[in-house]
Amino acid sequence: MWDNSVENSRIVIVGAGNLATCLGKALCKVGIRPLAVWSRSEESAVALSSLLQCSAATDIGSLPDADLVVTAVADDALPQVARLVAARYPDALVVHTAGSVPMNVWAEAGARHYGVFYPMQTFSKAKEVDFSRLGIFVEGCSDDHCDRLMRLASLLTPMAYRATSEQRAYLHIAAVFACNFANAMYGMAAELLQGNGLPFEVMLPLIDETAAKLHTLSPDEAQTGPARRGDATIMNRQRAMLSEPHSEVYDIVSRYIRQKAMNIKKD
Amino acid sequence: MWDNSVENSRIVIVGAGNLATCLGKALCKVGIRPLAVWSRSEESAVALSSLLQCSAATDIGSLPDADLVVTAVADDALPQVARLVAARYPDALVVHTAGSVPMNVWAEAGARHYGVFYPMQTFSKAKEVDFSRLGIFVEGCSDDHCDRLMRLASLLTPMAYRATSEQRAYLHIAAVFACNFANAMYGMAAELLQGNGLPFEVMLPLIDETAAKLHTLSPDEAQTGPARRGDATIMNRQRAMLSEPHSEVYDIVSRYIRQKAMNIKKD
Repeated sequence: MWDNSVENSRIVIVGAGNLATCLGKALCKVGIRPLAVWSRSEESAVALSSLLQCSAATDIGSLPDADLVVTAVADDALPQVARLVAARYPDALVVHTAGSVPMNVWAEAGARHYGVFYPMQTFSKAKEVDFSRLGIFVEGCSDDHCDRLMRLASLLTPMAYRATSEQRAYLHIAAVFACNFANAMYGMAAELLQGNGLPFEVMLPLIDETAAKLHTLSPDEAQTGPARRGDATIMNRQRAMLSEPHSEVYDIVSRYIRQKAMNIKKD
Repeated sequence: MWDNSVENSRIVIVGAGNLATCLGKALCKVGIRPLAVWSRSEESAVALSSLLQCSAATDIGSLPDADLVVTAVADDALPQVARLVAARYPDALVVHTAGSVPMNVWAEAGARHYGVFYPMQTFSKAKEVDFSRLGIFVEGCSDDHCDRLMRLASLLTPMAYRATSEQRAYLHIAAVFACNFANAMYGMAAELLQGNGLPFEVMLPLIDETAAKLHTLSPDEAQTGPARRGDATIMNRQRAMLSEPHSEVYDIVSRYIRQKAMNIKKD
């Protein structure tokens, strides 16, 4: 069983994708080297194990004993992998790293000690992720398990939080809006520029400033633009210059901004 | 008339709002102190003039002679102010700073030497704007006037570009998407978090990373998330957790991302 010293815990990582790679490196950085990594693909397992200087396995049954097993695999593979992990590690604390998968995937897989360890960030293998600059959200099947995960998360970042499965589901949706959908707005801007012989690079200072503002202002306070001001002349002119799908997004998001601005004035 | 040395030009700023303030300070920083500023409000004129250490006026007729008059007033005040500026300065180069107003507002106002000097950024009086990190788009009624404005813009930023009125109109729309609409996505994320007892701050690392990615990847390359992957299970689950207006935005933007991803695969 896991003792109280998180630093000395024996950790195994199940998975060798973007998140497993970034998390493994972050653990090594704070002095907690995983014992082993697993991947269905021998090539991926060996690649990550040599990066982390630990052992590799393609068979979950052959993984070494551990106190904590972090399962970072694709959401749709999780239920099946969870069963194998729960069978191999009846006494270890087993956790997954998925925003949208409830904790009870582990109960359904037959695990006894389980939880969730969700680092919220957009991961790409090529780009190093600084764990000290992201939020980690943990959940445990008991207060004790949750405490242990909080201690581990706190070693990696000052932004360690407890979150229920339902809160985590909303966190994931919020991340879809703030990351995926914001990026889609950048994509639409890129299309509008490209169609008019203008380079996307000219947008970067604006995009950086828009993100930077939120460190001192709320999104409501930071909101600017024709819809915020209620400038109907410009909105009609801009709307007339757009076609699908940009025009539809222009209507709906402008209406949202306008409505919000009027509600704030009323307060 | 304006000689070839941009550095020695006599500049007057008409307006004392966010953009006039930031531009005035940026000009001083590169050694070009405006001669005077104008505002309809004496308080605003005096405040900016003391900041820039120049004279103040509330009557355009009483402004000193100048080579270049930068008019930075609200879009809807521009036609009227432009007539007064054109009458006072028949021989100076007169420009406005608005993204969405065509250059010919000056011809209609009776000006002879005119153009546009559009710094693209989201301006707030409280927050200092670094002009060397934003794009400035210029247009002139002749090549010569355009050249002069390019030289002035190049003193302030390495990102100085020529843009026609039509290109500038699309630039402004692109900025609405990349800045105002991206911020609206942050706002929706904030509402979803708030409704579930979670602080908005947890989103900041994700928002910063989403913006930072675009310095090395195109928006298409940077796109991640359930819609990009075509993960129908998560999308249906998330959709069911949302109500208006978030659900409508979720549908439309997800469809856009999905469509885009399938087109890229086909290429």
